[in-house]
Amino acid sequence: MRVQRPKGTVDILPEVSYQWEKVEQTARDFFSRSNYHEIRTPMFENYEVFSRSSGETSDIVEKEMYDFYDKGNRHIALRPEGTAGVVRAYVENKLYGPDVVKPFNVFYIDPTFRYERPQAGRQREFHQIGIESFGSSSPLADVETIMMGHDLLAELGVKNYELHINSLGNAQVRQDYHDALVDYFTPLRDQLSEDSQRRLDKNPLRILDSKAPEDQEFLPNAPKIVDYLDNDSKNNFDTITNTLSQLGIDYVIDDDLVRGLDYYTGIIFEFMVDDKSLWESPTTILGGGRYDHLVEEFDGPETPAVGFGIGEERLMLVLQRQNSEFFVNPGIDFFVTNIGAGTDIKAVEIVRSLRNQGFKAQYDVDQKKLKAQFKKADRVHAKYVITLGAKELENGVLNIKRLADGKTIDLSLEDLNNIKSVMKEIEE
Amino acid sequence: MRVQRPKGTVDILPEVSYQWEKVEQTARDFFSRSNYHEIRTPMFENYEVFSRSSGETSDIVEKEMYDFYDKGNRHIALRPEGTAGVVRAYVENKLYGPDVVKPFNVFYIDPTFRYERPQAGRQREFHQIGIESFGSSSPLADVETIMMGHDLLAELGVKNYELHINSLGNAQVRQDYHDALVDYFTPLRDQLSEDSQRRLDKNPLRILDSKAPEDQEFLPNAPKIVDYLDNDSKNNFDTITNTLSQLGIDYVIDDDLVRGLDYYTGIIFEFMVDDKSLWESPTTILGGGRYDHLVEEFDGPETPAVGFGIGEERLMLVLQRQNSEFFVNPGIDFFVTNIGAGTDIKAVEIVRSLRNQGFKAQYDVDQKKLKAQFKKADRVHAKYVITLGAKELENGVLNIKRLADGKTIDLSLEDLNNIKSVMKEIEE
Repeated sequence: MRVQRPKGTVDILPEVSYQWEKVEQTARDFFSRSNYHEIRTPMFENYEVFSRSSGETSDIVEKEMYDFYDKGNRHIALRPEGTAGVVRAYVENKLYGPDVVKPFNVFYIDPTFRYERPQAGRQREFHQIGIESFGSSSPLADVETIMMGHDLLAELGVKNYELHINSLGNAQVRQDYHDALVDYFTPLRDQLSEDSQRRLDKNPLRILDSKAPEDQEFLPNAPKIVDYLDNDSKNNFDTITNTLSQLGIDYVIDDDLVRGLDYYTGIIFEFMVDDKSLWESPTTILGGGRYDHLVEEFDGPETPAVGFGIGEERLMLVLQRQNSEFFVNPGIDFFVTNIGAGTDIKAVEIVRSLRNQGFKAQYDVDQKKLKAQFKKADRVHAKYVITLGAKELENGVLNIKRLADGKTIDLSLEDLNNIKSVMKEIEE
Repeated sequence: MRVQRPKGTVDILPEVSYQWEKVEQTARDFFSRSNYHEIRTPMFENYEVFSRSSGETSDIVEKEMYDFYDKGNRHIALRPEGTAGVVRAYVENKLYGPDVVKPFNVFYIDPTFRYERPQAGRQREFHQIGIESFGSSSPLADVETIMMGHDLLAELGVKNYELHINSLGNAQVRQDYHDALVDYFTPLRDQLSEDSQRRLDKNPLRILDSKAPEDQEFLPNAPKIVDYLDNDSKNNFDTITNTLSQLGIDYVIDDDLVRGLDYYTGIIFEFMVDDKSLWESPTTILGGGRYDHLVEEFDGPETPAVGFGIGEERLMLVLQRQNSEFFVNPGIDFFVTNIGAGTDIKAVEIVRSLRNQGFKAQYDVDQKKLKAQFKKADRVHAKYVITLGAKELENGVLNIKRLADGKTIDLSLEDLNNIKSVMKEIEE
């Protein structure tokens, strides 16, 4: 029997891999222009990294982690999201020290893993593109993070996206709000879904994220965090939203937004795409927020921080639908066809020279008949075909043909090392 | 207690991550010019993928795999090398079909995992850059693969590397040679290392890879595979080596080269770097060969194939030592300093505009004093500082200063969106 890939994983084949490369290169360039640098943390961490960051009772840790014991009996887990490992690295490598410029700004492009039911745009191995900024509590740091999310989506060509924002306030606010939710939901306990009954004891905030039908009627009247915000949090939130307005970045204040993770404090935000051809309701492709206590949770010094993550699978779905012209599969520049004794080596040499000069070039390693070689040139979308036979070898002059219109020029073998200037002639 | 990263893993921090990005982008460009496309297979595969490809009794499968049972009780393993998953994907996605151009040429840049004793350049999570070519048995396909390895190392600036090649011949050759090794080592069994006694029963070829002191005296006189090669394999090997010579690619025929994996057939090769400042003896940074039966092993059709893999950690060590000028940390183009009420929003707008025009630009989200902002501009290696105060805001004219020599020019805010042409003035 054939061995298959594990359930919930995909093979990214050449027919789409160039799209992933394009998106990731665009993101890298974009982050670099904002002076954010890449960080790569291990694919797996000690289990405790994720139980500390996501919360021991979170769905991620309880149900969805790929955790196991290695051959040294260490309890490790494949990372279910990108932030926790970065925070662990920030503390372990003492990046809060005086030698590091503040804020410490990084991005990551990470495979991530959750044991969930696979569906369109949701795999067990998936990918996140994210940024984190450590060391600034300024509202301008929140603005910068949100603006970068906005501008990156714009640069990629995402359409119909809407920014939803909300504030979770400080620790006291969250405690007050937690108590208010308990007061509200406790009398309704028996009518809630089983999951939400469990959440009520462990983390009532998560009830607001529930998709269970039984819970829906109780959600609209649940207490809103905005009514519990302290003055500092309110003022900070106002400064952020005012600055966004001045920068022309539209947003919707969304009382229902709570995000699924335990570690957020202050502002949280999601960019949601409304595209009926993809999803019935607006769907989040980028989410983030401020998390001012997570570094302390990892026994680092008090460090304000803010970041976001993009679900790369969903982003790819959106771009393939909304901006397919972003993905141009360019084909190659030259296909060198050859026929006759001794021409094969010359074909390799020509191709090698073209590649060294920056062109995409190929020849037929199988040395099939000329007709098959031309067919192959066509199938790999070659722009030009160079023909090499006994005559050309003898005369030292090659023929270059542009496939689009059949235009040809001659190329002396001596000029091969200067192909760029030669090509100007045919491209005029 | 602080949570630490798992043993044998590293954090790739911004101080070196740009080097990884540079190497990988160079490899991507290089492969693309040869019309090789990326393939991304899952981080983990069903255990059987690796037990089929590497061999149930190989060290990799027996001792070094990160294998575990997922929440659905599937026996899965993090990939210990890059080829097996690619072959599984080739078969599962029917890439041998008529719609796919032959040979099917792919590259990968993969995290890989082996539970080994960590040492310099050898981590438990490490990285491989590799290529595979499926569907051609032509010696020109072997040549292309070796040439690509050679030219990529040259383009990266690796120095003092030597190509070692050998041939393992066809299945009959390997059987004959296997029997000869058994005949040779069996009388010596009691003097061999414990590992090699085990290998003698399971795979005597691996004794030749032994580093155990007890085994060393018996290795030089062991049978050589070259004496067992059939005529076809010999002729094929001669064709390959002759072509390499004609292309000016030097090589050493190395009778002792056997490679650690079970699946090779035909030619095998390694590029070894001789750099005493790194390693006492020449060390392999790129290895590969032909594996004409692995696709069948995965229940695909008979398919010749050839490829190579580069150990990225070792490659980085070599480049950091031999070609550090390859890694230029370029700093940013503009740092926008601002002081005074209302200048912060303008600073954000200017930075945003510069980024959108392709420049690296930053301002101080913490809005510290001007002196601190200038210090930060210096620390992030800004080429230019733009100053924005109440006066500049009022006049609509900014001052741009080049930090290298203090040269300044004025920039009207109206010209901001055309910064590229403005900058020509200061760069003259």
